[in-house]
Amino acid sequence: MYSFANDYSEGACKKVMDALIESNTVQTPGYGVDMFCRAAADIIRKKTACENIDVHFIVGGTPCNILAISLLRSHEAVICVNSGHINTHETGAVEATGHKIIAVKGVNGKITPEEIRKAVSLHTDEHMVKPKMVFISDATELGTIYTKDELKQISDTCRELGLYLYLDGARLGNALVATANDLSLKDICALTDMFYIGGTKNGALFGEAMVIRNDALKADFRYLEKQRGAMLAKGRLIGVQMLSLLEDDTYMNNARNANVMAQALRYIFNQAGIRMYVDSPTNQIFPVISNSLLRKIQAKYIVTPWQKFDKKHTVVRFVCSWATTKTAIQEFYNDLITYVNEK
Amino acid sequence: MYSFANDYSEGACKKVMDALIESNTVQTPGYGVDMFCRAAADIIRKKTACENIDVHFIVGGTPCNILAISLLRSHEAVICVNSGHINTHETGAVEATGHKIIAVKGVNGKITPEEIRKAVSLHTDEHMVKPKMVFISDATELGTIYTKDELKQISDTCRELGLYLYLDGARLGNALVATANDLSLKDICALTDMFYIGGTKNGALFGEAMVIRNDALKADFRYLEKQRGAMLAKGRLIGVQMLSLLEDDTYMNNARNANVMAQALRYIFNQAGIRMYVDSPTNQIFPVISNSLLRKIQAKYIVTPWQKFDKKHTVVRFVCSWATTKTAIQEFYNDLITYVNEK
Amino acid sequence: MYSFANDYSEGACKKVMDALIESNTVQTPGYGVDMFCRAAADIIRKKTACENIDVHFIVGGTPCNILAISLLRSHEAVICVNSGHINTHETGAVEATGHKIIAVKGVNGKITPEEIRKAVSLHTDEHMVKPKMVFISDATELGTIYTKDELKQISDTCRELGLYLYLDGARLGNALVATANDLSLKDICALTDMFYIGGTKNGALFGEAMVIRNDALKADFRYLEKQRGAMLAKGRLIGVQMLSLLEDDTYMNNARNANVMAQALRYIFNQAGIRMYVDSPTNQIFPVISNSLLRKIQAKYIVTPWQKFDKKHTVVRFVCSWATTKTAIQEFYNDLITYVNEK
Amino acid sequence: MYSFANDYSEGACKKVMDALIESNTVQTPGYGVDMFCRAAADIIRKKTACENIDVHFIVGGTPCNILAISLLRSHEAVICVNSGHINTHETGAVEATGHKIIAVKGVNGKITPEEIRKAVSLHTDEHMVKPKMVFISDATELGTIYTKDELKQISDTCRELGLYLYLDGARLGNALVATANDLSLKDICALTDMFYIGGTKNGALFGEAMVIRNDALKADFRYLEKQRGAMLAKGRLIGVQMLSLLEDDTYMNNARNANVMAQALRYIFNQAGIRMYVDSPTNQIFPVISNSLLRKIQAKYIVTPWQKFDKKHTVVRFVCSWATTKTAIQEFYNDLITYVNEK
Repeated sequence: MYSFANDYSEGACKKVMDALIESNTVQTPGYGVDMFCRAAADIIRKKTACENIDVHFIVGGTPCNILAISLLRSHEAVICVNSGHINTHETGAVEATGHKIIAVKGVNGKITPEEIRKAVSLHTDEHMVKPKMVFISDATELGTIYTKDELKQISDTCRELGLYLYLDGARLGNALVATANDLSLKDICALTDMFYIGGTKNGALFGEAMVIRNDALKADFRYLEKQRGAMLAKGRLIGVQMLSLLEDDTYMNNARNANVMAQALRYIFNQAGIRMYVDSPTNQIFPVISNSLLRKIQAKYIVTPWQKFDKKHTVVRFVCSWATTKTAIQEFYNDLITYVNEK
Repeated sequence: MYSFANDYSEGACKKVMDALIESNTVQTPGYGVDMFCRAAADIIRKKTACENIDVHFIVGGTPCNILAISLLRSHEAVICVNSGHINTHETGAVEATGHKIIAVKGVNGKITPEEIRKAVSLHTDEHMVKPKMVFISDATELGTIYTKDELKQISDTCRELGLYLYLDGARLGNALVATANDLSLKDICALTDMFYIGGTKNGALFGEAMVIRNDALKADFRYLEKQRGAMLAKGRLIGVQMLSLLEDDTYMNNARNANVMAQALRYIFNQAGIRMYVDSPTNQIFPVISNSLLRKIQAKYIVTPWQKFDKKHTVVRFVCSWATTKTAIQEFYNDLITYVNEK
Repeated sequence: MYSFANDYSEGACKKVMDALIESNTVQTPGYGVDMFCRAAADIIRKKTACENIDVHFIVGGTPCNILAISLLRSHEAVICVNSGHINTHETGAVEATGHKIIAVKGVNGKITPEEIRKAVSLHTDEHMVKPKMVFISDATELGTIYTKDELKQISDTCRELGLYLYLDGARLGNALVATANDLSLKDICALTDMFYIGGTKNGALFGEAMVIRNDALKADFRYLEKQRGAMLAKGRLIGVQMLSLLEDDTYMNNARNANVMAQALRYIFNQAGIRMYVDSPTNQIFPVISNSLLRKIQAKYIVTPWQKFDKKHTVVRFVCSWATTKTAIQEFYNDLITYVNEK
Repeated sequence: MYSFANDYSEGACKKVMDALIESNTVQTPGYGVDMFCRAAADIIRKKTACENIDVHFIVGGTPCNILAISLLRSHEAVICVNSGHINTHETGAVEATGHKIIAVKGVNGKITPEEIRKAVSLHTDEHMVKPKMVFISDATELGTIYTKDELKQISDTCRELGLYLYLDGARLGNALVATANDLSLKDICALTDMFYIGGTKNGALFGEAMVIRNDALKADFRYLEKQRGAMLAKGRLIGVQMLSLLEDDTYMNNARNANVMAQALRYIFNQAGIRMYVDSPTNQIFPVISNSLLRKIQAKYIVTPWQKFDKKHTVVRFVCSWATTKTAIQEFYNDLITYVNEK
């Protein structure tokens, strides 16, 4: 069984693995205050063109989101789209820190300034939570990406309304190398208050780099990191991996492979007359597949049924990663042709 | 300015006030373990025809809801309609205890078995919260009430799906005396796992009686009560008031006055050609009023603009209580006729 | 059975009760934004000689403490003495809001600058909580009081170390009218960041007045109040009571009666050769009583065994209040003489 | 600078590293439901002689402790010694989940049945938290270990009093291979309700194996794991490492090296006339060193000043691990002789 189920089915890309091996016996202080973490932070400062950021290396994406939102006071709430990861797939992690999520309608997984304004306008007094942060992800949970203009407008709206803008970058690489993308890491940093660069889904064994640009959010972050169990004893492991990914083009190349492979799958589906549920330019695609075809595919491939489309069709998620090979795609192509022709 | 803003604008009804005065110098133990609380609990046992319930006297409605939901484990969530009080007007009190609210579509403020089933079916694994409680209110936040058949179906659905059913009875009296109502206090107790009989909005200075029928929810409730700051030092005050309200027909009579006065207002609006946003048989009504008429009304009356209806109209909430007088209704009638004729 | 068990065995003092009756049918807005609350706040502004304070009317003492401590960030901790109410008798209410209590040794229930400094010096980095608030009570849980000099030193220490000083004033009246006291309400306000004036234990049915002097703690307090279930619908009830207590000398007179009666009890015990566990000048005294004598007393009086003293003696708490009468004290005197002579 | 600061200064032991490399490109499902995790769990079932346990692979020790304690209801508290890790070095992580720690006196870092009984006897009613779990660590934070008899007595006490017994096994290997130890993994499992086998400090890059024996604690653990951010996307990484450590004697051998090296250091200090603060048979030792000697050592070695001993001496922590070499110990010996003779 070959898996297109997600982008964390394998371990780390070769360069990251080599860096871990090479640094393995070096002694460093614990908890992320080592030279590898410092070097990785410095590279991120350069790539974001922002000397003044704080960078923290966190063990995973859910901990990042928990930490970001635990910066709020308890009556302050976070706005996100209905399909946002924190609203759907983190077992109430945000609420477990005491905060309400104000879920709003998204457009293909993306939030709009209008929905943000509406959410704020509906929360008028102390009998309601106070919206204070907007959560977005890029690429989104539906594989879509924000344009520079869209992000600029969201950012402007947040600043006007006194909201922090936090970006979940679990698949930031996939967004930044997408064909239609016009955002850079510098833009991301300048337009948000806080975001993270995802490692887990783009070539690391695990680990994300949290970037805090807004001074108001910087104080005592390491206390929260420890308190929430998100600080690794051997913190240097994340530094080593992030350094390895970001010191050259590895991070972008990994993401590019994921996108190219997924877009090849999309092309294959199109050839077979199968349409997409949403127009995603990144490494996740969502073909609408007849249930009979899906059963055939699932005999040989692991994929994720996303939601019911109609009685006879299902939206299915296919994900590619840095590890997906041309061979796998070619084989899937052959299989799909066979399955379709069997009808 | 006369207020139709809510049902807690005045203090307590005369009988309750007299009971407080009469018992004022009696010494009792603190924290609700006194003879008044015991007597009130016994009356509730009789009225619900359930000897086996636990009864606790809580300082207010939000504390009741906090306590009910804090009985869940942290990954367990509560399902309620979008318009549910815990979802809209308690400043994230539920989330502050660590729990997620799964908000679903309501029909005139009421939940349906279909929506409960759908919410459960969408929460399939440990990446999502686990629905474990259903929150309803009767009367609802829109003044509507559940029929016996509706509540029975909801109750059956909850038991089938392993969900606790909790009923917020802030306006339970108003529901039980509504013309169309076919539910009794016995039904409420038998069909839910836990509910509260609201005092604050029906003649008490403050205080609610929490009734726990399901044994699984009884253990250590008083610990939580103290921990959440919901246990009054002079707990007997709530016992005295509830005893006074429930030992005869005062509770129902108070509610009846509120309903009758509100329905008189509704009749008046109908006479003036003004329609209702929702068909409420209880003490809250929601006329759709032109903005110009609303301005005139607001010069002399305090009312609550509920939401925008269209560019020229607003949904306005009028609330009556045990304290609303015929004189006030008569005067409003005269004023409304005048305002309408001025056009 | 006559009760010396606590200072909340009865309802409210006559003046407060009359004020509640008189204001009962007046319509006011809910949730503490009414004219009575405003008037009570203004009186507190005068009595504290501080125009710039925020005043909130809270339903009880534990909610006050929950609210004060929920102003901290989650990694920030509160320092208090081992015997502090929040550490012993609030069922972990502070921890339930996510905060650690750093319990330190007290001297007769009072904290010292040395212990504060020590606690701060032991918390050096992000692997430990960060001390950020000091909790004291005056009178303390052992009935003792702070001198002006002591409070000044604690206050100076807190300001030097960047700690907020919060004072639990459940028995503030008893402290301020104690014979040895040299603190005024103005001093209390000037030397702390936040404190509350207790009503429940000094003549009100319930309710406390939270005073916030430090601007850094003021923002959005009402949001927290609502979220934690500490905001009463008929908030005006607390305003009415506080106004009644504070507009003249009633508050101080109530406290004075409590202290005088307790000190009379102390004199009686001394006459009978029974010594005190701690030297308390307020309304709580702690005689060390032989177990056989205690049994006799308990046949007619409700008192609280506080802790074992030795095999044959128990520390017992006797509490007087605004409601304790000379007759009760006289009768206890007669009984005690009888019991002692029976030996 | 050579570091004796802790047992997590290096990466992973060679066998673990090789296992990670070898399994790197294998596709597995995410979140710890893969074949490696299953195999590692099976080995733990064999080694504990308990088929019926649940095993979960958690990213680190603080997350393990957070998860264990989040199984309690919010008014339930955990008893541990003052020096317990959760009480001192986890930034209030336990309190951040809403639970109070009842800190009691330890004997050389170990809890006693007497202290457990005393803590329970002092918590008598609903105004206090309810003790429900006992937290111990083996080896303790002071390097000491429990004997079988001691653990048996603690376990019996807990069962008698209705308390869960949870054991933090961050350094469980070091305890089990200590010369004086008479406990086996089977004993640990049989005598506790829940414990974890630490990987981070004994040869893994990171990761711990949580073992739940008591059925009452098993339900929905994975929900909490996800909610608290403790579930790794590539969960198989912990399975791979634990499998590698436990499938043969690697885990015990790693721990043995750590202990032997630390005991060699202890011998060296003894030879130099330097005494120990506590008698530790494991991989942490605590010599009492003069401040002048400490300064010399710190010029070349990284060690942890643990606490002031007196004006002229400091208790210093030296830690060895699987990675500590004979060469390092030999060199330290030579240096110490030199430093001491310089005087």
